[in-house]
Amino acid sequence: MRVDSYFIEKCINELQELTEKDRPYTRLVFSKEFLEARNWLTDRFKELELDIKVDKAGNLIGIYRSYNNSNKKVFIGSHLDTVPFGGRFDGIAGVVSSLSIIKSFRENNVEFPFDIELYDYLGEELNDWGMSCIGSRGMTGFLTEEILNRNNSSGKILKEEINKIGGDSNSLGKKFSIFQDIIACFELHIEQGVRLQNQNIEIGIVKSMPNISRHRIKVFGQASHSGTTLMQDRKDAILPASDLILYINKQAKKYSEKDNRHFVATVGKLDIVPNSATIIPSKVELLIDLRVVNKGSRTNFLKELNSEVTRLNNLYNQKIILEDVVFAPYVEMNSEVNLLLESSAKKLNLSYMYMDSGAGHDTAHLSRVAPASMIFIPCKDGLSHCPEEFAKIEDIKKGSQIIQQAILSIKNKMT
Amino acid sequence: MRVDSYFIEKCINELQELTEKDRPYTRLVFSKEFLEARNWLTDRFKELELDIKVDKAGNLIGIYRSYNNSNKKVFIGSHLDTVPFGGRFDGIAGVVSSLSIIKSFRENNVEFPFDIELYDYLGEELNDWGMSCIGSRGMTGFLTEEILNRNNSSGKILKEEINKIGGDSNSLGKKFSIFQDIIACFELHIEQGVRLQNQNIEIGIVKSMPNISRHRIKVFGQASHSGTTLMQDRKDAILPASDLILYINKQAKKYSEKDNRHFVATVGKLDIVPNSATIIPSKVELLIDLRVVNKGSRTNFLKELNSEVTRLNNLYNQKIILEDVVFAPYVEMNSEVNLLLESSAKKLNLSYMYMDSGAGHDTAHLSRVAPASMIFIPCKDGLSHCPEEFAKIEDIKKGSQIIQQAILSIKNKMT
Repeated sequence: MRVDSYFIEKCINELQELTEKDRPYTRLVFSKEFLEARNWLTDRFKELELDIKVDKAGNLIGIYRSYNNSNKKVFIGSHLDTVPFGGRFDGIAGVVSSLSIIKSFRENNVEFPFDIELYDYLGEELNDWGMSCIGSRGMTGFLTEEILNRNNSSGKILKEEINKIGGDSNSLGKKFSIFQDIIACFELHIEQGVRLQNQNIEIGIVKSMPNISRHRIKVFGQASHSGTTLMQDRKDAILPASDLILYINKQAKKYSEKDNRHFVATVGKLDIVPNSATIIPSKVELLIDLRVVNKGSRTNFLKELNSEVTRLNNLYNQKIILEDVVFAPYVEMNSEVNLLLESSAKKLNLSYMYMDSGAGHDTAHLSRVAPASMIFIPCKDGLSHCPEEFAKIEDIKKGSQIIQQAILSIKNKMT
Repeated sequence: MRVDSYFIEKCINELQELTEKDRPYTRLVFSKEFLEARNWLTDRFKELELDIKVDKAGNLIGIYRSYNNSNKKVFIGSHLDTVPFGGRFDGIAGVVSSLSIIKSFRENNVEFPFDIELYDYLGEELNDWGMSCIGSRGMTGFLTEEILNRNNSSGKILKEEINKIGGDSNSLGKKFSIFQDIIACFELHIEQGVRLQNQNIEIGIVKSMPNISRHRIKVFGQASHSGTTLMQDRKDAILPASDLILYINKQAKKYSEKDNRHFVATVGKLDIVPNSATIIPSKVELLIDLRVVNKGSRTNFLKELNSEVTRLNNLYNQKIILEDVVFAPYVEMNSEVNLLLESSAKKLNLSYMYMDSGAGHDTAHLSRVAPASMIFIPCKDGLSHCPEEFAKIEDIKKGSQIIQQAILSIKNKMT
């Protein structure tokens, strides 16, 4: 039983058209393009004769029903949303892979003593509410009231957006009752790094995901005219902000070299007020994305950052505030699920290695309440979250076959 | 003959309502709010029984006609547009002052052997096309085809916007024929500095305006995932950009101390692509606003900036491009017009001082082709281009009376 690589390619090609036209590839959660992609997925679910539902966390699910009306479930899937100017494979490869697996089961009339639920997890990418993995956090009980009530930059409230697409935000805050019935969760994803490519290995079996946190720094200045305000009379918010950007990069380099474990810190988003050439900036906000394996290094980094904020505050005599925005803990993937994936790779004669993930994924949240893991496939030059992102159809097919084989193994053990 | 301070206050209060409601005070050139303000001004022109026209450069003009059908003209006025999150007085004080002067002439039936033309000069503030003083540059022949054909960030072409509000962009590129008939141009403006306030002086008579130029630096990086791209594998556009911001500030401080003349450099506008927390920035654009009296210092500053760009280019191994965007030369105000203003101040028993301007104004462009100067009135704590911007109605009145007196003196000399 083979998965259909032509089908995989066709799906990737169709989904890449559902982007903001002037910013390929952009399909932000809740956007028009996102809703178009969900309609596209719903059409695929119908073709595969799946039961279709949206759960309370706003995840879109197609269900391949068991032959025996079982409560037991296996989860597969990933996400359809992208970052701005993102790629054609991050998340999408996992959704399309899952479709190809179900298609092979349907066409071969393979039946199971458990449901297979195919998920488009809602809004995996970091969004304008400062939050990622909305759907997987929501179903596992990790969306707090504070998060649900956040406004984005257009004044939209997160929980209202979840409700609009069919969720029920009042029911979130604790994990769904389905979790007791889950046998395993699988997710296929591009590696977003170069280890598989450099070592010429076909599959990565994920061991862990790092501690991921985001921190906001607000630097305050005094707006005034750029032409008439003398250099010595200025309070320019962009100066301490620039110092902080360079400091954060320097410190992250130091810790990543010292630990020789995953330690990355990025300032990718900056909001400047009012952002006009003739006005001295009155406020600059930095969002720091921090991903660390070593807990001690993380603590030291944040302590030192706090001291640097105080030092710059005194140096410039300008208010600077450091706030925590979001936190996801270090998690290990389920070892039994990984053994299943490993034996599937061996059976299919595919090369594999165990590896830590640098990125977070929906499976990080699922793994906190159910047996879950994921596999990585190679992605060209490690580029991701950019239009150049690329994975071979053949590699998506290989990964799909491993998950297909793992699901068949579960059936074989049960019957 | 007195100008009416209640009328001045009423006008300021009415104009401050014509703002983007969620970003007070914002009335960008060509915006809905800008058109509302022009309609408001047209209504005032009608009340004062002025002839109304829009010239080819898109300036809105109300004409108080001579009694003898003369070709001779005196110009007064300023601008109605603001920067984003700007103030209620920059430009506006000059327009309202001019209305109050014409009102006093109309109410006292004072007639002149020359027209008095009251201008709302189009788009004085720096706009999204990287250009300021559109109207005064346009009428004096300093708008080139390159500038007129520029796109803004929404893809709108400058010349088409000028045409939409009644201008004729095909006729620009040389100075209007009216200039041979101009006796004098006057503009009242808030100082946007603290010298008048600190020395408790009522009026500043402007001697010169600085060399103003804007320069764009484009820093290129490689977009990739903030979580999976190791520190040593990054090309992050925000790092050289941060170095440059700090360098520019340090150098401007150095030259302003060394020269003890006006030298300011500001990075107030920064565009980050894609500006997302989970993506390493692929491009950062800085706009530098530079205002200098000493030509040699300007040359050295730009030469050293160019070397620093090369140094950072080598250090980071990332492409960095420095481009010139716009240039306005150092200009001196007309000394005869200034003598008129000085003798008016003396006659009215108002204290005055001569001063250099730190900002550019429409009068800088007019002064290149006609006798022109301007006066400054005190503004609170020197704050400008921000909502806190404030000038006393009484001070606008005093300035208006000086220009009123200067116009009467011209008449007296001619008749």
